[in-house]
Amino acid sequence: MRLPESFYTSVRTRLGEALDERGLDGFLATSPADVAFLSGFFYIATERPVYLWMPREGDPLLVIPRLDEEYAAQQGVTLETVSYFEFPGVVTAEQTLATALSRRGGPARRIGVGAGVSVGAFRALSTAITGATLETTDAVARLRLRKFPEEIPFHEAAARICDEMLGAGRALIEEALAGGGPLPREDEIARHVIGYGTDRMYAEYDMVVYTTKLAGGLVYAGPNSALPHGLPTRRRLQPGDTLILSLGAAVASRFVESERTFVVGEPTAEQVRYYEADREAQEVGTQAMIAGRTCAEVNRICLDVLRGHGLGEYIRHRQGHGIGLQNHEAPWVEDGDDTVLAPGMLLSSEPGVYVPGHAGYRISDTVLVEADGPRRLTGYPRDLASNILEGVR
Amino acid sequence: MRLPESFYTSVRTRLGEALDERGLDGFLATSPADVAFLSGFFYIATERPVYLWMPREGDPLLVIPRLDEEYAAQQGVTLETVSYFEFPGVVTAEQTLATALSRRGGPARRIGVGAGVSVGAFRALSTAITGATLETTDAVARLRLRKFPEEIPFHEAAARICDEMLGAGRALIEEALAGGGPLPREDEIARHVIGYGTDRMYAEYDMVVYTTKLAGGLVYAGPNSALPHGLPTRRRLQPGDTLILSLGAAVASRFVESERTFVVGEPTAEQVRYYEADREAQEVGTQAMIAGRTCAEVNRICLDVLRGHGLGEYIRHRQGHGIGLQNHEAPWVEDGDDTVLAPGMLLSSEPGVYVPGHAGYRISDTVLVEADGPRRLTGYPRDLASNILEGVR
Repeated sequence: MRLPESFYTSVRTRLGEALDERGLDGFLATSPADVAFLSGFFYIATERPVYLWMPREGDPLLVIPRLDEEYAAQQGVTLETVSYFEFPGVVTAEQTLATALSRRGGPARRIGVGAGVSVGAFRALSTAITGATLETTDAVARLRLRKFPEEIPFHEAAARICDEMLGAGRALIEEALAGGGPLPREDEIARHVIGYGTDRMYAEYDMVVYTTKLAGGLVYAGPNSALPHGLPTRRRLQPGDTLILSLGAAVASRFVESERTFVVGEPTAEQVRYYEADREAQEVGTQAMIAGRTCAEVNRICLDVLRGHGLGEYIRHRQGHGIGLQNHEAPWVEDGDDTVLAPGMLLSSEPGVYVPGHAGYRISDTVLVEADGPRRLTGYPRDLASNILEGVR
Repeated sequence: MRLPESFYTSVRTRLGEALDERGLDGFLATSPADVAFLSGFFYIATERPVYLWMPREGDPLLVIPRLDEEYAAQQGVTLETVSYFEFPGVVTAEQTLATALSRRGGPARRIGVGAGVSVGAFRALSTAITGATLETTDAVARLRLRKFPEEIPFHEAAARICDEMLGAGRALIEEALAGGGPLPREDEIARHVIGYGTDRMYAEYDMVVYTTKLAGGLVYAGPNSALPHGLPTRRRLQPGDTLILSLGAAVASRFVESERTFVVGEPTAEQVRYYEADREAQEVGTQAMIAGRTCAEVNRICLDVLRGHGLGEYIRHRQGHGIGLQNHEAPWVEDGDDTVLAPGMLLSSEPGVYVPGHAGYRISDTVLVEADGPRRLTGYPRDLASNILEGVR
């Protein structure tokens, strides 16, 4: 799952430019996603800090806990690496970093960090690294806004698997319908599709890595589907239910999401109404993802479709969000984000309709903004006729 | 999975005392674990902030995104709740909180937050809440050091399930050995035991909640087991392998871990040596977890057993860590932590021996410090004879 070295070379060149513009002597990565982005080292995030120092000039330096040393080598990480023994440590991670920096000599006076760093870590770093000032910067966050060409095939591979996960969930239910036995429960469907996605990753890749997960998802039906972030329950699927499979997958932590709404058996007029309104909003909103528009504009175009159908009271969230090394990341396709869309941005397009006590409806694709328009990486059918679940097809 | 109201009442009383001691007007919880601890509200953590205001006097206030409103109600959360629409929002979460606080009138001049809050959130809160000063405090972190009596049955329930997960992994392998077919791969074993644990949660509980996960684990064998935080690979288990199942489970996000080392077939002298040394260190280290000793002392007693066996070069990590609403939390059973053990503390005891190119050996229990000594919540057999995997038993 390792990206080609040309990717890391490009990233470093671009980061150097960003640091120059900001007058920073280097960037100190403190999050699993930033570390993976800049170095290709993936680790299980715990209280043990991992720091990646990316100087404006010279070679990067990775600071890791001792227990990850052999693992980094196995991943093919060839950066200069120093380790500290443990957390909290008699010699801390921050002191280990400071010692290694001072051994290098060169004066680093202005060090940039992401705004996601904890107050506790920021203070520990500021205390340990004497003679330098830490300040927050968007240098790396901005670099991650537009995906690099080498990242796209990984997102595409994740999209194929995520679409297959939808198909696996559908098959599980349709087999139960055909067999006349009890329908599966939400938790059973969730376990099945997540297991399916995980298996596919291991079938395709020799060295599986991630920052948070390989495959995941929410599964809810009937009234539960009206809660956008409700966990799966043990409620059994019932004939007539509306069902949402809200699935995600990541290859080398390059995430996608693919979400579809299904109806078990012949839909009612009410189900048709909500489904079709959501599908229209998703189509219009997706086609609106054009370079040059702001996130806020696109979001308004999308959600206006729902409002136009008189469904404004059933909106619970924005149209979407950026996707990359995190399943949610900037930019945000929301009223409060004036980021201008540009080629290389990867976004979810996922308007939803949530009718309390009845059900929810959401269709989500992962959409790449390209120079000539939006391109969906996920492709599972979106029309209602295709997503009616029946025992015999 | 909801804890009894008596728990939340006790927590609030104790928090009030801690705030008094520190001269703080209230605590603002910003993490899923702190919010769950103080209120019983569980949510999927995203970029959308959740803030729980716990004033020294008066009623708590919960600030959540709109999409979680119905979900909070379904969980039986009855705190006063205000919602903001979305992230980043035209009106932000921080502004929504500030408005609600100012409507309440009473002056909050000194607001405590945990040191884990991000620099970005700390600044946004400081800007929005005019007239007050935010400062980091250990008030809630210290409250979480010693588990409350109402939390213990949830940890015990998780321990039973986690031990069963070990049994499920063992059964999968022994069935394959007995059948003469190919042995399972690391990823297959991982999927099986995690799925088993998840199923058990849903079988036992009606309303499943978590902060990060229900069940999880690392599975590695042979040389891979020498990498303490390596992810499962698709390497197939082989006769003669050393295998570590490193499993965790949480009920209402009350975590435990239960980890065992197995040998496939008759162990070699080398395997016996490492296994027995690790088992002795784990036994001695666990019995050393006595109220009044410091974490550093206990860690030294434990790891000295390994050093005494001449295995110091194969140590990669401390003896253990605190467990609670997070799978890793303070205190840390490590040289750098002088926290004095006290009844109610819940700790992992998990010394390990890692021999590069050969294998790793780790046995972990979740141990409750009680007035009359340590009590293991996890109970899977630890002796080598019990953990030899064979086709016929």
